[in-house]
Amino acid sequence: MNRNDVTEMIVAARIQKGIKWADVAKKVGLSKEWVTAGCLGQMTFDKKQATTVGKIFGLPAEAVALLQVVPYKGSLPTAVPTDPLIYRFYELISVYGTTFKELIHEEFGDGIMSAIDFKMDMKREPNAAGDRVNIVMSGKFLPYKTY
Amino acid sequence: MNRNDVTEMIVAARIQKGIKWADVAKKVGLSKEWVTAGCLGQMTFDKKQATTVGKIFGLPAEAVALLQVVPYKGSLPTAVPTDPLIYRFYELISVYGTTFKELIHEEFGDGIMSAIDFKMDMKREPNAAGDRVNIVMSGKFLPYKTY
Amino acid sequence: MNRNDVTEMIVAARIQKGIKWADVAKKVGLSKEWVTAGCLGQMTFDKKQATTVGKIFGLPAEAVALLQVVPYKGSLPTAVPTDPLIYRFYELISVYGTTFKELIHEEFGDGIMSAIDFKMDMKREPNAAGDRVNIVMSGKFLPYKTY
Amino acid sequence: MNRNDVTEMIVAARIQKGIKWADVAKKVGLSKEWVTAGCLGQMTFDKKQATTVGKIFGLPAEAVALLQVVPYKGSLPTAVPTDPLIYRFYELISVYGTTFKELIHEEFGDGIMSAIDFKMDMKREPNAAGDRVNIVMSGKFLPYKTY
Amino acid sequence: MNRNDVTEMIVAARIQKGIKWADVAKKVGLSKEWVTAGCLGQMTFDKKQATTVGKIFGLPAEAVALLQVVPYKGSLPTAVPTDPLIYRFYELISVYGTTFKELIHEEFGDGIMSAIDFKMDMKREPNAAGDRVNIVMSGKFLPYKTY
Amino acid sequence: MNRNDVTEMIVAARIQKGIKWADVAKKVGLSKEWVTAGCLGQMTFDKKQATTVGKIFGLPAEAVALLQVVPYKGSLPTAVPTDPLIYRFYELISVYGTTFKELIHEEFGDGIMSAIDFKMDMKREPNAAGDRVNIVMSGKFLPYKTY
Amino acid sequence: MNRNDVTEMIVAARIQKGIKWADVAKKVGLSKEWVTAGCLGQMTFDKKQATTVGKIFGLPAEAVALLQVVPYKGSLPTAVPTDPLIYRFYELISVYGTTFKELIHEEFGDGIMSAIDFKMDMKREPNAAGDRVNIVMSGKFLPYKTY
Amino acid sequence: MNRNDVTEMIVAARIQKGIKWADVAKKVGLSKEWVTAGCLGQMTFDKKQATTVGKIFGLPAEAVALLQVVPYKGSLPTAVPTDPLIYRFYELISVYGTTFKELIHEEFGDGIMSAIDFKMDMKREPNAAGDRVNIVMSGKFLPYKTY
Amino acid sequence: MNRNDVTEMIVAARIQKGIKWADVAKKVGLSKEWVTAGCLGQMTFDKKQATTVGKIFGLPAEAVALLQVVPYKGSLPTAVPTDPLIYRFYELISVYGTTFKELIHEEFGDGIMSAIDFKMDMKREPNAAGDRVNIVMSGKFLPYKTY
Amino acid sequence: MNRNDVTEMIVAARIQKGIKWADVAKKVGLSKEWVTAGCLGQMTFDKKQATTVGKIFGLPAEAVALLQVVPYKGSLPTAVPTDPLIYRFYELISVYGTTFKELIHEEFGDGIMSAIDFKMDMKREPNAAGDRVNIVMSGKFLPYKTY
Repeated sequence: MNRNDVTEMIVAARIQKGIKWADVAKKVGLSKEWVTAGCLGQMTFDKKQATTVGKIFGLPAEAVALLQVVPYKGSLPTAVPTDPLIYRFYELISVYGTTFKELIHEEFGDGIMSAIDFKMDMKREPNAAGDRVNIVMSGKFLPYKTY
Repeated sequence: MNRNDVTEMIVAARIQKGIKWADVAKKVGLSKEWVTAGCLGQMTFDKKQATTVGKIFGLPAEAVALLQVVPYKGSLPTAVPTDPLIYRFYELISVYGTTFKELIHEEFGDGIMSAIDFKMDMKREPNAAGDRVNIVMSGKFLPYKTY
Repeated sequence: MNRNDVTEMIVAARIQKGIKWADVAKKVGLSKEWVTAGCLGQMTFDKKQATTVGKIFGLPAEAVALLQVVPYKGSLPTAVPTDPLIYRFYELISVYGTTFKELIHEEFGDGIMSAIDFKMDMKREPNAAGDRVNIVMSGKFLPYKTY
Repeated sequence: MNRNDVTEMIVAARIQKGIKWADVAKKVGLSKEWVTAGCLGQMTFDKKQATTVGKIFGLPAEAVALLQVVPYKGSLPTAVPTDPLIYRFYELISVYGTTFKELIHEEFGDGIMSAIDFKMDMKREPNAAGDRVNIVMSGKFLPYKTY
Repeated sequence: MNRNDVTEMIVAARIQKGIKWADVAKKVGLSKEWVTAGCLGQMTFDKKQATTVGKIFGLPAEAVALLQVVPYKGSLPTAVPTDPLIYRFYELISVYGTTFKELIHEEFGDGIMSAIDFKMDMKREPNAAGDRVNIVMSGKFLPYKTY
Repeated sequence: MNRNDVTEMIVAARIQKGIKWADVAKKVGLSKEWVTAGCLGQMTFDKKQATTVGKIFGLPAEAVALLQVVPYKGSLPTAVPTDPLIYRFYELISVYGTTFKELIHEEFGDGIMSAIDFKMDMKREPNAAGDRVNIVMSGKFLPYKTY
Repeated sequence: MNRNDVTEMIVAARIQKGIKWADVAKKVGLSKEWVTAGCLGQMTFDKKQATTVGKIFGLPAEAVALLQVVPYKGSLPTAVPTDPLIYRFYELISVYGTTFKELIHEEFGDGIMSAIDFKMDMKREPNAAGDRVNIVMSGKFLPYKTY
Repeated sequence: MNRNDVTEMIVAARIQKGIKWADVAKKVGLSKEWVTAGCLGQMTFDKKQATTVGKIFGLPAEAVALLQVVPYKGSLPTAVPTDPLIYRFYELISVYGTTFKELIHEEFGDGIMSAIDFKMDMKREPNAAGDRVNIVMSGKFLPYKTY
Repeated sequence: MNRNDVTEMIVAARIQKGIKWADVAKKVGLSKEWVTAGCLGQMTFDKKQATTVGKIFGLPAEAVALLQVVPYKGSLPTAVPTDPLIYRFYELISVYGTTFKELIHEEFGDGIMSAIDFKMDMKREPNAAGDRVNIVMSGKFLPYKTY
Repeated sequence: MNRNDVTEMIVAARIQKGIKWADVAKKVGLSKEWVTAGCLGQMTFDKKQATTVGKIFGLPAEAVALLQVVPYKGSLPTAVPTDPLIYRFYELISVYGTTFKELIHEEFGDGIMSAIDFKMDMKREPNAAGDRVNIVMSGKFLPYKTY
């Protein structure tokens, strides 16, 4: 059994039991974004969190142990994603990538937005012309330093 | 002369003249995100906008005409970006892509977040532990329909 | 069991039982294009539709549940398809891609044809010189908006 | 000078002179789809057509000669297109490719839709919920024969 | 069971039973080129042909059914083949590709040689300096038409 | 100046002067297949041949010298060709590659068909249902030897 | 069972039984280079050789039959090898490839060194500064011929 | 001017002046293999060698200076070479790569053959059945060490 | 069973038993860097080391034998790594690669840092602004030699 | 003029004038590692640093301005580097990548070593068996945080 197997067990159990990610997050006591990423094999749970997740999805002890080990990250099967929902995010980088770069450098100088010290919030934004997906990302700016 | 040449002329003029994207945006009367993307060859200006941009950067008439034509979009030289700032966004999709998918489908059902009817706002988020980059994305949800 | 397994079960049952896609579509009550895409793992059925599909192909309850979950889309094993029938569509994009772009922009301005709010109809077009495949595609035009 | 240079000359002249593809097609006396593809370097004009195109865009004699030579076809810079409009067509193949295959084989047996003996028509489809792009494709069915 | 499994069953049975492709072709009543391609999962047999093939290789009923379904074609594991025999054909295209193109266009005008309405014959060509492989290909010329 | 430049000079001169490959071949005194490949930068001419080619196309002395140097071979810009005529040959390998392999090995044992000690002949094959492209390939069989 | 499975059986048996390739070669009566390549699935054994190999590694009859069938060649999992020992050979081609080409053409004219009518010998070359790997390659020169 | 330009100057001058690599090597006083690699931009000459090379090919002072700078190595335009002569070496690695690995490890243990402390000699091997290319490679064995 | 299976057994046992790599290294008597690489399938253990590793993780005899065979090296599933921790090292090469090259050549002349006669030490570097990862690499310089 | 042009100007001037990177670094007052990376187009100089660099290499004002703008980073022409010196670093990641990951996670938990808040020092390590390249890397550890 490896972490990938644990992800598949969680995904299957979720469908069978009709569990919602938002409810899992509430029981774990953290944001739905982070908890879902963890359940999908991208984050590391501590012992208590892993036990909670294990109970929710009915996982065996070995799976609960694996949830506490740092996984090899990367959740997509190809460099350019084929799924339309995920591709749209890739397209945003393709089209707006240099814009992100120019504006962040204009505001902060040389450096990056951290993808580690990072958090994010996804919510529904009601709108008469059709509801909108609203995503707020917040990552620490890390400047390149001279030495 | 093609649109790529126009982008290079704008980038060069901006450095020589010390112009800020935020100021260009103010003169054009739109957000700095959209205007910068347009100056970098990803969006189409109307006549008045193009004329303003042409004046700011001292572009010839042919370049101003090209700003009004829909460009072949895509701003990055490789499928996996090599620039560290832009790579971090690619990494976010790689790590969080399936999370985006699960949470948006849980909230909205089958469909996507539009990358066309889309807007975004980037700002500095002051923070004692180091300022943060804050990005808000808002895209219309487009459901798959049966037929 | 995952969605891929369900697709393989459907494909196998269809051959064994000699079922036609057009008949499946009629029983589901939707177009043959959308229903076939769903059976091949690209669309999400609602409960009633999934139950019908399950009965037609003799699927177990777990498979019927999976038909109601949004799948990771993308039906081809390689970026450039090797199957001659499917390759011809890829070739059309390779040869006519920039033509699509020019004509749609000339008619509509900057934006795209939606691949989500989209429908399509494939039928036989009798012709003395050899029958023809006739495909009508209809997708909502989504304009880029300034902001 | 090669065919690519001719395409760039046409594209530049079209912007400078504000010419519409539909008008070029009318003067050439063929569909706007085929004529645009030819102007973008994908089709071969005969002498009379090439002369007309040359006059419209003000091309030198060498360019007019090149328009009459079969070009190396393929209009896109990458295997997976980066331009959002063109990508949507690629996505349709990615998502619907096996559906095309199943339905065409169900209707016609083993074979392909020709991309050579092929024609297409793109038009605006007015719609209260937002106008739609309507594309009709018609290609001869070519059966695999035993021998 | 899928078509790939059927191919593996045929390949294994052929070795175990010491069957020759030429003999299979004779029993099926068609060329050895087409029949071998069919046995290797690239062509579709009709009922009678499939039954004959099934008897020769001792295939179960499910496999015989699968032989009558149009397969997803493409017989090689990589875009550039690694097997030396097959690579030589790829090299011929790499070296002679533009020559094929020039000569066929000089003779026929713009269009292609069909790979569907196509037949081929491979035979030994005795030669004092070492026997030669002789391959005759014959494909219908398909002209691009204006419309 | 390099060999590529010479190829472009030949291609341009051929169009300007309306020269046919078959006539070039006649003057050089070899097959049209080999001579065209040479003119397109894939073969090495001897002094007399190069001089003839130089006269026909009006090449400068430096170009005539370059025609006598072994070129870096490979005439296509991408691993999978985008031009429809050339792609059809690639498709034949993709679909029939393992068939070539089986039949040649059945006839000759382990080894390859040479792509060096190789010749080919392309001609028009008149046919009431549409003329056909007829290509005869003949390559020496080279057996793998044990040692 | 396929040839790959046979290779894995040989590799496993060799480790378990502590067999040396040089000894296998001696029993087969051929060079260690060719015999090892055959055991690793790249060459075709005749009946007697296959029987010997089968006895040495304790292979079942089906595996012995498979050793006598021409395999799909190519022993590496990626186009650019990741194993440091094998990569060094790839690096030699990357750095010295054009040198090989120039020197062989200077000596022999246009043509290639055969990789089929080819043999090779690997031995230890004692050296005070550290022993060296000594590899002698010998392949027939095959000239391109005009026709 | 960069090193690539120097390589092109050498290649052009060599053709124009009819110089042989073997003669260049004699004048430089080293092997033809190393000197050719250096002239093709893969090795670094010292001052005296560079001056000699500069005289032979009539290079300007700036080019002679560049010959003394370590170049970015790698002489081929694609990961899988398209030139038939160079491809054959790549094929040898593809087919014999794992054989090299097994035999060198059997003889020397874990480690590699150096591609840096390496030399090679290419010569003609007369043979009644057709002359052969004979290449002797000698590279220091470098063992992995534990620490 | 192959070396990959052994790696998976070790990884699983380590999690189940809560073993630390540093402790494994201490029992084997070598650095934690080399021992971990060996346990992850990149290095070759001698008999005594393999026995120790086997005891620690409870491996069967066959696995212990496999630990003593040179593995096919390369520990990552893609050419560009997706895991953020490992990607950062790839990014360092992408950004600093030419800097490494310039500085090593300035100090040592033409040649490389060995990745075989190489050792490395990773430790925690306490720091008030956040602890740092400290890695010391030491590889023998190997000069290119003329011959 | 773009940053790439500036890099080429610096590289050319350095060779012509025989300047050492270590001396440039001394005049700029920072480490040779950072300054070389900056001169090669990977870092951003402030006004004073840029002026110093401009004087050393004799750069025009426009180039000095460009040195103060954040560049698009990434210094290598291919995803897998072909230069042997740089490849060795890539090989270290390929072989030791999962080892880095295991040991850093064992010491620090889930997170990464920063490639931004990072410094490095390269020096010669004298050694009787051949001098060694010694590289010390120090990057801040950045932990993934829950939220």
